[in-house]
Amino acid sequence: MGRAVPRVVVLGAGFGGLQCARRLAGEAFDVTIVDRNNYHLFTPLLYQVASCLLAPTEIAAPLRKVFRHADNVHVHVGDVTGVDLDQREVSLDGGERLAYDHLVIATGSTTNFFGNESVASHALGLKDLGEAVNLRNHVLETLERAAHADGDERAALLTFCIVGGGPTGVEYAGALAELVRLVLPLEYPELQVAHVRIVLIEMGERVLASFHPSLGRYAARELEHLGVEVLLGASVQSFDSERVQLDGARVIPSRTVVWTAGVRPAELAAPVSAERTRRGRLVVDERLRVVGHPEVRAIGDIAAAVDADGKELPMVSPPAMQAGRYVAADLLGRAPKRFHYRDKGNLATIGRRAAVCEIGRLRLRGFIAWLTWLVVHIYYLIGFENRAAVMFRWSWYYVRYERPVRAVIHSDRAVGADRAVRAGSDYDPPVP
Amino acid sequence: MGRAVPRVVVLGAGFGGLQCARRLAGEAFDVTIVDRNNYHLFTPLLYQVASCLLAPTEIAAPLRKVFRHADNVHVHVGDVTGVDLDQREVSLDGGERLAYDHLVIATGSTTNFFGNESVASHALGLKDLGEAVNLRNHVLETLERAAHADGDERAALLTFCIVGGGPTGVEYAGALAELVRLVLPLEYPELQVAHVRIVLIEMGERVLASFHPSLGRYAARELEHLGVEVLLGASVQSFDSERVQLDGARVIPSRTVVWTAGVRPAELAAPVSAERTRRGRLVVDERLRVVGHPEVRAIGDIAAAVDADGKELPMVSPPAMQAGRYVAADLLGRAPKRFHYRDKGNLATIGRRAAVCEIGRLRLRGFIAWLTWLVVHIYYLIGFENRAAVMFRWSWYYVRYERPVRAVIHSDRAVGADRAVRAGSDYDPPVP
Repeated sequence: MGRAVPRVVVLGAGFGGLQCARRLAGEAFDVTIVDRNNYHLFTPLLYQVASCLLAPTEIAAPLRKVFRHADNVHVHVGDVTGVDLDQREVSLDGGERLAYDHLVIATGSTTNFFGNESVASHALGLKDLGEAVNLRNHVLETLERAAHADGDERAALLTFCIVGGGPTGVEYAGALAELVRLVLPLEYPELQVAHVRIVLIEMGERVLASFHPSLGRYAARELEHLGVEVLLGASVQSFDSERVQLDGARVIPSRTVVWTAGVRPAELAAPVSAERTRRGRLVVDERLRVVGHPEVRAIGDIAAAVDADGKELPMVSPPAMQAGRYVAADLLGRAPKRFHYRDKGNLATIGRRAAVCEIGRLRLRGFIAWLTWLVVHIYYLIGFENRAAVMFRWSWYYVRYERPVRAVIHSDRAVGADRAVRAGSDYDPPVP
Repeated sequence: MGRAVPRVVVLGAGFGGLQCARRLAGEAFDVTIVDRNNYHLFTPLLYQVASCLLAPTEIAAPLRKVFRHADNVHVHVGDVTGVDLDQREVSLDGGERLAYDHLVIATGSTTNFFGNESVASHALGLKDLGEAVNLRNHVLETLERAAHADGDERAALLTFCIVGGGPTGVEYAGALAELVRLVLPLEYPELQVAHVRIVLIEMGERVLASFHPSLGRYAARELEHLGVEVLLGASVQSFDSERVQLDGARVIPSRTVVWTAGVRPAELAAPVSAERTRRGRLVVDERLRVVGHPEVRAIGDIAAAVDADGKELPMVSPPAMQAGRYVAADLLGRAPKRFHYRDKGNLATIGRRAAVCEIGRLRLRGFIAWLTWLVVHIYYLIGFENRAAVMFRWSWYYVRYERPVRAVIHSDRAVGADRAVRAGSDYDPPVP
């Protein structure tokens, strides 16, 4: 249409979308990045928010701040209600429409409950910041209730089930075990650490299935040292908020199930009429273009990009970041004709001093792996200008062995009705 | 009954209750401190949470941590459902009952809407941590909506009304004005600072009525320098979430009313059958004992303690703290026969470099008052072991002129129904 500058709309400000938009900053494109949140979330540290070590905002970089100096990148906070691939237009919940010349779909993934409605209704997730704060509140409130409960009720309150032996489940189980061991002896004279059960439930035959088996075995041993029961080959049939029903008639009385057992590609509010794989990921070609729509790219968890062997890339952040950078380079005409994913390795922590790390054939464990984890995560806190503050806080609490973020804060209580009732009595203060 | 150690129950872990329990730590009393929150809140900095400068947990000291080394002080998180003065027993929402030999009522105050139901239903408060986070979320979401709105709607979205010219209203108005001036030019290219209206509405003839008139005038001038409209002698008749109706038929189209215009003594779920003043405060004698119940003390906002001239003490933190210390000393037999309140002065900030400060006849304003404010507030962050971290953060952001805490986080969404619906589609991922 004779426009001098092509319009790029990026849907999603996760690792993929953010990288793509950052690489287009200052270039001859008019970029709009859309997300329902006003921040980019550093998800690898979510479990630290859930376990009282970091404040939620310490792992959330405000998008407008990230793109403060990029005049050609606009931030739009809102939900996508429709994508019209033929009209090349995105609709948003505020009624706005964004026309594009290039669309980058980077909407990520959501928790997969595999159709289990009882779990979906009663389990806690650990996939976004609201869920992490909910989980922190729930665990702290459960400990308070346990302090004044007895017998079976106390036992159920002190039993925490974590489902899924992937990195999220392992890292949260380790952090929760440490929280309990740190906080209980000093601050809960009513409770004993020995009465707390933390159960990590994994359907497969080992934890950290994406790592070498020796590292998975090491992680399980380390978790057990921290007091975590690792239950392998077990799957959750149902959870009614009081009892966890496992396969084979086993039952665990528990008030807490944290579900980290799977993710699935996010659905857009209005489905994009493009081809998907059986698992729901968008089919893309070797340049990450959606089939039939060369002006539409899909990256990260939502897209079924493949590696050199034709295997689908895992739903984790490194492929998303690399794909985001590739798409930006491709739009700028500086990319090779094929997206090539470079697997730089795998990292997971188990508590405060142990970790596993796999870089090509190199396998590290223990403190050296933990240090590697620390350096990598601090390095990748990109766009976070409070990186120094977070580092300071980490080292401070590492030295002091502390868990600072422990206030239970409920901020979304319905106020209207309740307030009105309270106001009604204001004219006449109670004078019994 | 021959018990060796008298039982003290302290209701409320605000400034009064906390001081009292801390002074009884390590003494020959069995103390239980009860609060509905698991933390003590440093309320003087609430406005900094609402204006994106501090994270909520930075001004919340976990109670169990505060009393970690006090073996004779027990923390009980819960709501009080009844106080039986004859049986000397407190009931809690979990069904527990706490018998006492001495009761200290320190339940504080709550927002006073003076019976105005429309305001109570639609205005935002700034009295607890949940409200501060709600307010922060609301302001940030309102700016996002304004970025994509036009005309009258944009103008209403950009109009922020703050009702009440006391320290809370003045401090929040100044901090909000600074937030807007800091963030908008750099990060909201769609919006202009000049289009933002911040209106401070005060019923009386000046702001900061508890200070010397010259300091109130200075504060109003400083607010106006920051771009705040100070509306004196004006009162809010109603607010329907779109229009603020003032007396005299004046109307301000606005989506935001922050209500800081008054507090009133908190009500206990079950009213205590003790004498109250017309404003609802418990009548106490010169040793802060509730009339007819020498074993019951009341301190802080809930109690109508008087100064040497017989004037009721204001509902602010210093009298509560002094009364808490007095009651502890009195229980220990180390106090004079009469509680004597020492007014150490008054402090309020207006933005980042200005403040007013009144100590006896000494009146300070400007940067020197601001420094005084800073030193006093850091000093009084008692029980906060992260004081060093907060200081670090303050100085860091002071130098960098930043507002770090800007993620909109909703953590109390009802998940059950929504989750179940989403789970239903998991078996069959959408394959259009």
